[in-house]
Order: sequence, then C-alpha cells, then structure tokens
Amino acid sequence: MNFPKSFFANGLHCGIKKNSNNDLSVFYSYKPCIAAGMFTTNIFRAAPVIVSEKNIKNKIYAIIANSGCANACTGERGIKDAMAMCEMTAKKINVKAENVLVASTGVIGQFLPINKIENGINKIMSKNIQNTIGAVRGIMTTDTFPKIAGAKFKIGNSDVCIWGCAKGSGMIEPNTATMLSFILTDAAITKKALKEALGKSVENSFNCLTVDGDMSTNDTIFALANGESKNKTISDGKSFRLFCIKLNEVSSKLTKMLASDGEGATKIITVNVFNVRNIYDAKKIAKTVANSPLVKTAIYGNDANWGRIVAAIGASGVKIDSEKIDVSFGNINVFKKGRPIKFSEINAKKVISKKEVEINININTGKESITVYTCDLTEDYIKVNASYRS
Amino acid sequence: MNFPKSFFANGLHCGIKKNSNNDLSVFYSYKPCIAAGMFTTNIFRAAPVIVSEKNIKNKIYAIIANSGCANACTGERGIKDAMAMCEMTAKKINVKAENVLVASTGVIGQFLPINKIENGINKIMSKNIQNTIGAVRGIMTTDTFPKIAGAKFKIGNSDVCIWGCAKGSGMIEPNTATMLSFILTDAAITKKALKEALGKSVENSFNCLTVDGDMSTNDTIFALANGESKNKTISDGKSFRLFCIKLNEVSSKLTKMLASDGEGATKIITVNVFNVRNIYDAKKIAKTVANSPLVKTAIYGNDANWGRIVAAIGASGVKIDSEKIDVSFGNINVFKKGRPIKFSEINAKKVISKKEVEINININTGKESITVYTCDLTEDYIKVNASYRS
Repeated sequence: MNFPKSFFANGLHCGIKKNSNNDLSVFYSYKPCIAAGMFTTNIFRAAPVIVSEKNIKNKIYAIIANSGCANACTGERGIKDAMAMCEMTAKKINVKAENVLVASTGVIGQFLPINKIENGINKIMSKNIQNTIGAVRGIMTTDTFPKIAGAKFKIGNSDVCIWGCAKGSGMIEPNTATMLSFILTDAAITKKALKEALGKSVENSFNCLTVDGDMSTNDTIFALANGESKNKTISDGKSFRLFCIKLNEVSSKLTKMLASDGEGATKIITVNVFNVRNIYDAKKIAKTVANSPLVKTAIYGNDANWGRIVAAIGASGVKIDSEKIDVSFGNINVFKKGRPIKFSEINAKKVISKKEVEINININTGKESITVYTCDLTEDYIKVNASYRS
Repeated sequence: MNFPKSFFANGLHCGIKKNSNNDLSVFYSYKPCIAAGMFTTNIFRAAPVIVSEKNIKNKIYAIIANSGCANACTGERGIKDAMAMCEMTAKKINVKAENVLVASTGVIGQFLPINKIENGINKIMSKNIQNTIGAVRGIMTTDTFPKIAGAKFKIGNSDVCIWGCAKGSGMIEPNTATMLSFILTDAAITKKALKEALGKSVENSFNCLTVDGDMSTNDTIFALANGESKNKTISDGKSFRLFCIKLNEVSSKLTKMLASDGEGATKIITVNVFNVRNIYDAKKIAKTVANSPLVKTAIYGNDANWGRIVAAIGASGVKIDSEKIDVSFGNINVFKKGRPIKFSEINAKKVISKKEVEINININTGKESITVYTCDLTEDYIKVNASYRS
C-alpha cells in the first residue's frame, strides 16, 4: 500500500489494554497539514472529540490516538487528559498542542492512564520507524483485522496518494459510529475543498454503514493533507472532482471492510434501495432493513426469508405504495409489485450463502437511490458483546 | 383464571403447522359483543387485518385465529381466504361473516391451506368443550408459553371479569408488534368507552414493549365485551376509570409476559425514563436504550456496562442536557449528573443477574416519564431466527 509522502505512522502497546495488543498510535506529517474532521452527533461527546473539534481549525501536524479507553464521560479531568496527549505529542515534534488532534476508543467512563500514555508517546516518537500496520493496530478494539485502503492518481504531473485507515467494529451506526477513520493525503488542497470532499465522501460511505444501530460517543473522522505531492492546489473543477472520486473509493473500501468485520459477522449485506421520492426516505427504508435483527439473522441462516425484508420496509415509517414494491436477493427476484413470486429456493440459498449478499429493493415511486452496508447477526455478536468489559 | 361469562374458547391442530401444535383457535360469545380493535401501522397490512378492520364496526360474535401462516402479502386470494374463515365460523353459529373477526400469524407470503382450516373450524365448533389454554396455544408461534392474564372486580353489585391472552415473541415493536392479543370481558360498556379504554391501555402497555424493533404485518389487538355481567353500562365517570385500571392491569401483565418470552430471552429489562420534557421524547430515549443490541447483550452478560446505556441515550436524537443525566441499575447508582460514580461492581452484578433488571434513567429536564419493556439479546435469539422457516 502506498503511503503519502512525508507522513510517518507508528503504534505500540503502552499498557492501556490488559492484553499485549497495540493501544497507542501516532500519525504525523513533517510538514503542516490542512485538516478536516467529522465528529459524533451523540450528545455525550468524549473529551478527545471536544478537544479535536477545537484544534482542527488550526494547521495540524499529528494525530495521537489510543484504544482500550474512550476517555468519555470523564468530565474536566478527561478534557485535561486529552489536552495532555496533544501536548506530549506536540513537545516531541516542536509544535504547539493546538496543532495536534487526539482520538480515543474503548470502554466509556474510565480515566486514561496518562503516565503510561506519556511513556508510550516518548517511546513511539524516539524511534523513527515507519510502521503503518502497527499504527492501525493501535486503534483497534474488537476489530479482527486492520483496515487500510489507498488510492494513487495524478493531478497534472504530480503523483498524489490518499491513504486511509479505520477501526470498527460494534456500536456502528455512523452519523457517525464507533469508528475512527484517519485519511492522510499528500495532495495540496484548500481547507474548504478538503472539508467539502470529506463531507460528501462520508455521507456516501461511513454514514451508509450500520452494524447494530448504535452510535458512539467517540466517532471521529480526520483528513489531513500536507501538500507534499506539490500538485497545483485543488480547490474546485476537474481536479476537485477527481480528488472526490478517489477519496470516495478509499472511504467506500474502508466502509465495506468495517461491515465485513462487524462483531461476529460472517457476511457483508449490501442493501440497495432504488427509486424513492427523496434520499432521506431512501436511507430510512435502507436502514430499517439493514438494522432489522430478523433480516440479519435470516441472512446468517442462509434463509431467503423475504417476508422479513418486506415487513421491515413496511415498518420504516416511509409512505410508499405497497403494490409497487419489488425485492430481490442478488438477481433472484422474490417479490414483485407487492406480491411474492415463485423462485427457486435452491438458487436463492446459493446467492445468500455467499460472503457478500445483496438485497435489492425497488420502491418504484421516485428517482433517488441509496446503498447501505451492514453485516449478518450471529451468535458471536452476542458472545463478543456480553463480556466486553471483562 | 376466571373466564368471562358466556364466552367460549377452544383450539386445535388443523394442519397448518408442520408439527402437531395447535394452530387454529376460536373465541366466541353466545351473546353479541361490542368490539374495539387496534391494528399494525405497517404499510403491508395482512389480509386478516384488512378484513377485521372492516368487520369490527359491527356487532361481533367470534374471533377465528390461526398460527403457522400470516396470510400476508397474499393479495386478492388472501382477502378471500380471510373472509372465508369468517364465513365458515359464522355459519356454525348462525350469524353473518361480517360479525366475525379474523387474525393470523406466522410465515409471510404463503397462502392459507383453507380446506384444512375449514375442517378445523367444523371440528372445533362441533364439540362444546371449553379449553382456553388450547385456544391460546392455537395462536402461538415461537412463544414458549401461553400468555394469559385476568382481572375480576365489581361494578355496582355486578361481578365483572376481564380476560386477555397474547402471543409474541419476536418481531416485536408495537405500534403494534407481531403480536396478537384478544381481550374478552363480560362488562356492559359502550363502544366509545371500550375503544377509548383499549387505546389508552395499549399505549401504556403493548406499545411500550420492544423485543427487536421490528413491526409485523399482522399485529392485532381485539377487545370484545358481551355485557353478560349485567352491570350498569360503563360509559364514563368512576366505573369507566375502574374499567381502565383493570384493563391496564391485564394488558400490562401480558406485556411483561411478552417481554419475558422474547425470542431467546433470559431476562426482562424494564427501562424507566423519568422527567423528560414530553412523552414523545421520553419514549424515544427509552426505546433507543431498549433496542440497543449492545445494552441488551451487556445485560445478558450480567455486565454493568452503563457506558452503553449512556451512549444510547446520547444517540437517541433527543436534545437533552448531558450534564443532568442520572442512571441506575435498580437501586445501584452508576452515573450522576453526566459523570460515572463509584459503585460496587459486585452489588451491581447481583442486581443485573436477576431475572428482572431495571434500568432507571433520569433526564432531569421535565415532568414526563415512561416505562418500556424489553428483554436481553442472547445466542438463542440468533438460533431461533436464523432457521425460522425451515
């Protein structure tokens, strides 16, 4: 995977997690970055969210992030700790604390072991070893694999790289989700353009992902651009559109990885809803289907139980004409104009038994369409989550 | 359990279900009944819902109900079949089809085996054997026990009885849920009063229940009153209030039974939300918590993971002051004014390990309060639902 020029990333175990997995990561740029961010809309905003939302207005040099402790519901002390993480990192690279972003994920309501983190930051910054996978591992909680995606393209004669990583994997319903995602690029781009590109791409990717309908206190997406590819600064027009397409590629890949690694998931479920009056209704229908435990368990059981899909569509609260609705699993039509149709259960089972299952819903009353990603619901989701704190 | 005067109930296996469990039930009154009903708001309304909604305007003599097949998404033929069930029953008791209500529950999108049902109706009506449990068993799908509740009280010198039954147990989020409930009473009451009493009681009971956030195509609640207790006809005032209280007792008991028998459930979770600006917001907060898979799995795992409760409150979309919120498990306070507080994990575990777990949330910004019932989320929910059709 290509990594954008003049960025450095590393991670290590500093002792927040009880096991020996990495729990502290730094991503920094030798040159100052334009930054954009998106944050949880949960009313309980974790301390690092509050601190980063303030700092993101400035030039940014680094992201310091930890897993194992969310630093959420931790009051004044939490804010101080988050600011201390910025300060400790800033000191090592001779910038101000306000030029550093911070993110945390893990258990809510516990204080950070700030001494361990300080030792960790000193250690991580003293060795100049590039270890992007180690850095991505440092933000993982119940994720089973590190999620990284990239894109390389030309703007004028300059090679531009966008690199992104993300962590899931439960408590996912973006807008945003317990989800951290950091996007790094060496593109030269205006702050306004980066912000707009990130907003659009998140709307079509992370915000279309749902694992269990829960939204966390810590959800954060950062995008940093250090301009080291020396391209003509992107602001609008053709180069902006290209940047958006490539950013979308990266965030969509990460989104699908998050869905595939939903806690206990064995399959990715893609819910396509077509031809709805407006995008808001389309999303509401798609999310009602994607969040239905009955739909998710049926897919897990390789069962073409379209009745549950239909019941979820009907329960979404969107006013639609039930007599116009079509449903298919991949290319197997099971429901046409509000009525079940004959289909081969054997073929349907084949389609549903695959690792990626597509549910297509045609509402046939408008022109807006949407894709939402989720995963199946399995016994392992229960096992993972019934004993998370212990 | 007392049964209201001049009502008859029985059930049997007529062959809709593959196993030998009861799948057909009749509830009828020798005297004509005042009737009230509430029906699913799902846009896919099953045929029996459509037929019963029309018939309920009339005097009612009987309810004919089946399990194993929902007669939903079955078009014109479905409507004809539902009407045929009314007709077959009506013929046996010398009334018109329009004086009979019909309800179905089970798999969506299959046609009723109407010949088997006809044989069943003939058989059930030829023997005059009272078998209320058998009748309740006839409407069960994945329920593990029949749900029956009753109340007996005096209006003037007359003994009045209210009897109710219900079936769950997955796809439950009322408004209403895959849920059938039939309430029978020998009270004399006006149609207007019965309708109002039923509406109020459903709002405070069945509509405060959520197992998995799914709403079915068939949800139906019927109340029949035959006046055989010869009380002074209830219309308003003291006797109406008493009737409402007693009806509420019955429907609340049934609601708690439904929660306790949620698919795979090992516990009832009661979510009390106090002091919210309005009842709509209160319900939204309570349901977000009650529907959170992370909260439900934590309770299953006997884990006092209040962070998930707090995250769900914050994600509910209701504008509240995060600094004012208190949370407790039963009488164990875990969160006060937006901050975690020290509590004994051992005592908390004791409280959460019980069969009935109470989550108390005080929003401290208004005067409205609500109680919502749900159950924990377990591996068995997955097992039951991954293979429902097979």
